[in-house]
Amino acid sequence: MTDNDKNIGAGQFSDEFRAGLLDLMHWRRDVRHFRRDAVPQQILDDCLATFSLAPSVGLSQPWRLVQIKSDAARQGALKNFQHANAEALKGYEGEKACLYAGLKLTGMQDAPVQIAVFCDETTEQGAGLGAQSMPEMRRYSVVSAIMQFWLAARAHGLGLGWVSILDAPALCQTLEVPQDWALVAYLCIGWPQDDKEQPELEQLGWEYRRELPPLETR
Amino acid sequence: MTDNDKNIGAGQFSDEFRAGLLDLMHWRRDVRHFRRDAVPQQILDDCLATFSLAPSVGLSQPWRLVQIKSDAARQGALKNFQHANAEALKGYEGEKACLYAGLKLTGMQDAPVQIAVFCDETTEQGAGLGAQSMPEMRRYSVVSAIMQFWLAARAHGLGLGWVSILDAPALCQTLEVPQDWALVAYLCIGWPQDDKEQPELEQLGWEYRRELPPLETR
Repeated sequence: MTDNDKNIGAGQFSDEFRAGLLDLMHWRRDVRHFRRDAVPQQILDDCLATFSLAPSVGLSQPWRLVQIKSDAARQGALKNFQHANAEALKGYEGEKACLYAGLKLTGMQDAPVQIAVFCDETTEQGAGLGAQSMPEMRRYSVVSAIMQFWLAARAHGLGLGWVSILDAPALCQTLEVPQDWALVAYLCIGWPQDDKEQPELEQLGWEYRRELPPLETR
Repeated sequence: MTDNDKNIGAGQFSDEFRAGLLDLMHWRRDVRHFRRDAVPQQILDDCLATFSLAPSVGLSQPWRLVQIKSDAARQGALKNFQHANAEALKGYEGEKACLYAGLKLTGMQDAPVQIAVFCDETTEQGAGLGAQSMPEMRRYSVVSAIMQFWLAARAHGLGLGWVSILDAPALCQTLEVPQDWALVAYLCIGWPQDDKEQPELEQLGWEYRRELPPLETR
């Protein structure tokens, strides 16, 4: 730290840091193409540590994480995806159906690290503060933590793919998690085959990104 | 950029940047004590631009933002909070009720910028990809975008407070938003009265933070 501008620390951040943060968000992708080489445990642990820094309603920290390691659990999760994806395909016709069928929508076959993230809907931590009128705030807290983890992982060059084409209640049963846990995300994590600036869905012509429109006011 | 380590750009990030990112997450707070001085429009716009970089299911970008500026809309939102907060207080007894009653749980009276964030539950953008078996993914996408905005704001020194003690359907009516929009968050934004490392709920003895426990495995 020789530059006066680099006053990182004590809650102050530099122009250079802000530019890097924007760059990070610019390069963050939902990754479905993974290399199979291992993720060093220390890097994974460093990224996971950001969960405890995430905002949570009433400081309830309702996130619960299960790493999916065994062949049986991985096969169960993959089959769940395949079934949900086949069901989803039925919702499209013609050209869109062809395009959908050709998309690679999960990295579950390759990603070396796979983590299912749940919300404990009945945690007593936080004593319900902030979640009485909007109990969905607990699940939103879990999403906030996942987003911090995603950015931290990408800052290490790790890719993350969030699989949502799943029968969530069925997967909870397969993984034998407590009844009060709701599945929020199934995360595939590993080294991406390549770094991309453009979302794959945009690249393949499924959808394109819009700028945020001017704010409405009231 | 004179240091070889600072290869920021093209999706690569330095150790220094990663340390700054961890610092940012460490200093991010849910802020309820705001100074009343204005937020420069350019800073707000820069932060809002991160919405378009956020992940969204099927590239659906379902976030919809309404800035609450008029006295009438602000009063309506504040009354909504006050009513919901009085209801929430009834859920506590004894010491916890006293503690709850003494907490400042919103900065709505002071925050110069206030933005209600909604999810368009029926957007056709993305053609439903990834949201058929888990339609809540649209709301989770909105939360992801809010989280990016929150970190970008904090990197500028701005505070954000996420108000969730609200009757969401009633607030949608008050603000006359389209029927298919669900309220995800009411955000108070402005310069914080002070920078804090510790969450206010922890400082005041409501709850304390836990480290992430070791991952369960399956």
